[in-house]
Amino acid sequence: MTQFLKSFENLPPEKQAGWGFEQHGFTINDDGHIAIDGRVYEFSGQIYPRILPWLSSQLGVADLFQQQRIVSTFPPEVTVHPHAASVLAVLRDAFPDDGADDTADEGGGADDGGADGDNAYEGADTHGSMISTDPMLRLRLAHGHTMNDIYAIHCHDTFDAPDVVFSPSSREQIDAIIALATEHQFQLIPVGGATNVSLALEGHHGHHSENPEDAPVRVAVSTRRMNRILAIDRVNNTAHIEAGAIGRDIVYALEKEGYVLGHEPDSIEFSTLGGWIATRASGMKKNRYGNIEDLIVDVEWVTPMGTVQRTTNNPRESVLVDPNALILGSEGRYGIITSAVVRIFKRPETVAYESVAFASFAPGFDFMYALQQSGDVPASVRLVDTIQFQFSQLLKPAPTGSLAVIAKAKSTFQRWFITRVKGFDLNKMAACTIVYEGSAREVANQQATVKKLAAQFGGVLAGSDNARRGYALTFTIAYLRDFLFPYGVLGESFETSVAWDKAPALWQAVVAEAEKWHAEMGLPGKIIVTVRATQIYATGVTLYFYLGFQCDTAHADLSPIDQFAHIEHRCREVILAHGGSLSHHHGIGALRRGFLDPTNLRTQTADALKQWFDPQGVLLD
Amino acid sequence: MTQFLKSFENLPPEKQAGWGFEQHGFTINDDGHIAIDGRVYEFSGQIYPRILPWLSSQLGVADLFQQQRIVSTFPPEVTVHPHAASVLAVLRDAFPDDGADDTADEGGGADDGGADGDNAYEGADTHGSMISTDPMLRLRLAHGHTMNDIYAIHCHDTFDAPDVVFSPSSREQIDAIIALATEHQFQLIPVGGATNVSLALEGHHGHHSENPEDAPVRVAVSTRRMNRILAIDRVNNTAHIEAGAIGRDIVYALEKEGYVLGHEPDSIEFSTLGGWIATRASGMKKNRYGNIEDLIVDVEWVTPMGTVQRTTNNPRESVLVDPNALILGSEGRYGIITSAVVRIFKRPETVAYESVAFASFAPGFDFMYALQQSGDVPASVRLVDTIQFQFSQLLKPAPTGSLAVIAKAKSTFQRWFITRVKGFDLNKMAACTIVYEGSAREVANQQATVKKLAAQFGGVLAGSDNARRGYALTFTIAYLRDFLFPYGVLGESFETSVAWDKAPALWQAVVAEAEKWHAEMGLPGKIIVTVRATQIYATGVTLYFYLGFQCDTAHADLSPIDQFAHIEHRCREVILAHGGSLSHHHGIGALRRGFLDPTNLRTQTADALKQWFDPQGVLLD
Repeated sequence: MTQFLKSFENLPPEKQAGWGFEQHGFTINDDGHIAIDGRVYEFSGQIYPRILPWLSSQLGVADLFQQQRIVSTFPPEVTVHPHAASVLAVLRDAFPDDGADDTADEGGGADDGGADGDNAYEGADTHGSMISTDPMLRLRLAHGHTMNDIYAIHCHDTFDAPDVVFSPSSREQIDAIIALATEHQFQLIPVGGATNVSLALEGHHGHHSENPEDAPVRVAVSTRRMNRILAIDRVNNTAHIEAGAIGRDIVYALEKEGYVLGHEPDSIEFSTLGGWIATRASGMKKNRYGNIEDLIVDVEWVTPMGTVQRTTNNPRESVLVDPNALILGSEGRYGIITSAVVRIFKRPETVAYESVAFASFAPGFDFMYALQQSGDVPASVRLVDTIQFQFSQLLKPAPTGSLAVIAKAKSTFQRWFITRVKGFDLNKMAACTIVYEGSAREVANQQATVKKLAAQFGGVLAGSDNARRGYALTFTIAYLRDFLFPYGVLGESFETSVAWDKAPALWQAVVAEAEKWHAEMGLPGKIIVTVRATQIYATGVTLYFYLGFQCDTAHADLSPIDQFAHIEHRCREVILAHGGSLSHHHGIGALRRGFLDPTNLRTQTADALKQWFDPQGVLLD
Repeated sequence: MTQFLKSFENLPPEKQAGWGFEQHGFTINDDGHIAIDGRVYEFSGQIYPRILPWLSSQLGVADLFQQQRIVSTFPPEVTVHPHAASVLAVLRDAFPDDGADDTADEGGGADDGGADGDNAYEGADTHGSMISTDPMLRLRLAHGHTMNDIYAIHCHDTFDAPDVVFSPSSREQIDAIIALATEHQFQLIPVGGATNVSLALEGHHGHHSENPEDAPVRVAVSTRRMNRILAIDRVNNTAHIEAGAIGRDIVYALEKEGYVLGHEPDSIEFSTLGGWIATRASGMKKNRYGNIEDLIVDVEWVTPMGTVQRTTNNPRESVLVDPNALILGSEGRYGIITSAVVRIFKRPETVAYESVAFASFAPGFDFMYALQQSGDVPASVRLVDTIQFQFSQLLKPAPTGSLAVIAKAKSTFQRWFITRVKGFDLNKMAACTIVYEGSAREVANQQATVKKLAAQFGGVLAGSDNARRGYALTFTIAYLRDFLFPYGVLGESFETSVAWDKAPALWQAVVAEAEKWHAEMGLPGKIIVTVRATQIYATGVTLYFYLGFQCDTAHADLSPIDQFAHIEHRCREVILAHGGSLSHHHGIGALRRGFLDPTNLRTQTADALKQWFDPQGVLLD
């Protein structure tokens, strides 16, 4: 089994002010080396002496870690709407016992073969009350993990937040809150894991009211107490799961039953089933298990017009428009997802890893294409460019004792082989990370094809250790942004999908655009634009970029976040001009909404559906 | 390659008054044996001495073929709307040159690597004019292949048909006709292959106007001249194809380029790409290639509100609601599909067939389930019950010459082995027909799994000949309805999808319900209810039924078609009560629309989308 966490039990609470688990992340230790705090990851508790100088070099700022340039003032004060008290009174009146007797309160439990109480979301105390005005909870549910969000919570004095957090534990309570919101004209903001990178919780009208009194009071509807696995159907290979269940809890609960979920987005530690559906999420093993749209058999969602659900859980049907398809990508605008019947898979017989090193990104990309065409496509295939390859190599902890000698010898041999025998330049190399899952025979076939194609494109099989490292890197790299932030480095990921033949030009154009604006704006050091190809399809590929640079805190015209936003915006324009999608799996939110053409019938149709399901604007827009 | 036709060239025109190619179908020869006329099928030109007595026996009517009980009065007179002339004048005025100079007129052509003129739809002469009032063309485009349709064209004096047939050859002409229809308030009925079995062309308001003058004049918009393959993209594995292209023409054109389409619905000889999308069609090889929703990368469709299309042909995206998903199942109500970019596949390395005989349907069904769970799922897996198994065995032409001795010995041995060694009862047996497509290794793996599972469930491998026969049977059996019709036998297929564990009870309940009503209504002979499981999914299965019986032409209360409709309706109620879908791939049309709950938000949402895309009701509803 692929394990993104060393254990699923006794996890620390989630951080308030950044990504991840409390007391986890990168720090600089007393020796001036970078260390990874915490205990839940493979890399936790290790020291990585070579990372700091490498980061300074990559960002072209020699004294990068000498000075903290952004001083956090977290937490900001959260706004209070002048009419918040009256809405709160309405809620307290409607739910006098505050859900205290509700069994789902314990979190993570399951009536039928699901997770037990040990698996409860450890931060569930923050959702212990059905109705809360706790400012820290309101703040946390007011934002996702967009760079803009993180900048704002650390650097702004105030943060625009919902006034009340409502945490239902049943569909009936969601029905009730929608009825109340309709009657009393307050607005609901459905929230799952609050891990979006699209300003999804902002809503595109949310911040634009001239007079605060004219804007509706906002109530965050947190689904996190609706986190049960309601049923596992071993005949039809499905599980019925409440929408607020978190990815890691679902994984853990199903694992105990001999099943895997198959859906593993990078946010799986914190994101929810409902969030995956609402954002049309993609998992890294989609080659085997499919994306979220392939995994949902039936979704139940509640709108101000009523509940949408298919009448039978048949495998596939031709009956009008597919209601499941309408909620995908709705991002909370049409309704609140309450539960879904999803496909589940028997635990694969074999799990294996492989990595393949290439002289550069281009032959690695050709390898990926050929692998996709071959039909022997492993569960996950990702190609990282030089920067990410180097970073993954630096994430080798300093070995100790007799292991050090062996590790050094092995490492020296590998380097010798790759650089001398193959003639690879370490400053140009790329690497492909592969996760195999399936029957022993399927995996063996895929391995044979990988070996053959690697040779064809001049690749060198670099072993499963490198692959496991590359995979784990996904979950560790997410902490890097918060580590770099105080040093004035702003960074974020963004992604697109594009036809195969358009991908190379798109990638190069994004790099050029970022570098052009970085220079033109006179920003310090160098801009990092690093790419990985994360998903492959017969018809195209997903490119996932990271952008990072040290901002100029004394810039004459632009605040640090505006410097970042400007460059990111320009990169997105270039993506669109080169035939890339506005988003492959992050969705639109308020961040990318401005790129939609309001005169396009497709955009208008999405708005028409909003008008249909939510004619009075009860849900965020 | 699987070939459903012996040749794709020089095909006869399509029949006017029934299914299939002209001069093809079953007849009784001078010796009183059944023969299959024509030349395009494997079975064509052969004589099948044992079919007639078997049919008589199955239907429980000894003198079934002694007398023709239904005398066709085909063709019926087609209606003419009192205002038809004025609409015709509008059209002739708007399109004065009648498209005569349009290159697409030739049909089947392709600018880029597509089919050549030889592959043109041979019946295209009927679509040679952009504007036609030919009564036979109007009649043909007024109906599909629902039993009700066929009964009506043979037995009714008049048939309600559109007044004009408009056959555009470009999207611009579709834009224009929609603008004209909006301005002059006539109604458009999009038509592809007109092969529906759902009364899809009727529209659910079409026939209910009290005063004919109040109903709008109707114009059938036939897409059949828009049949070009516009581009084949060998890098991204897609083809851009106009919506009016017929399945067999697409297959043939792609085959020349080394590709397969993968989508092979039973109607592929006559149905169109646009029709597949509009009805959310399923192909028999969907295990390898996917259903139509898996195959479409991008669909262009024109609505009265404008054109819907994604902005880039990326492989997958998270951008609002997926516009492709909105047109699936729309059945012509939302817009007219003009073209689609679809996935194509390199011609498989290996194609093989297998059939597996089982003692009865139940172990065969368990075998199918186990095969699905194994992950080694062949491209097509179908399980037929005893009746269809017997029919396929009777479709062995009488061999001649020295072959007869060998064939007889082989047949005798097979029968001896199956009945004596395995103890199978020929009156209870079932058979599974398998088509393998893929790499030699994939096929070998699937074959090994089939062999293992066949043994596990007591099945006997019965060879590729039987499988090819079973496959070809699909295309031949479609002619049987028209052969039996004059003898008073009414028959039709209907289908559903259902979770695996609910399937056996559903099947038995349908049989019981049909037999109950057949007895209760005092109808002659016996009712045939035969089933095959045609599609398998991890989460469920598709059951495809045929229903047939000799009607009572002298029934006191019910006309023949009402006798049939009553039983079919009751069977559908039983399907729904047992958790089956209203349709797996045939769609709703006017035939099944009455089963939709108008108070269900899902139904209402489909209607809201109709209202959004077509606020003035320009398209049929």
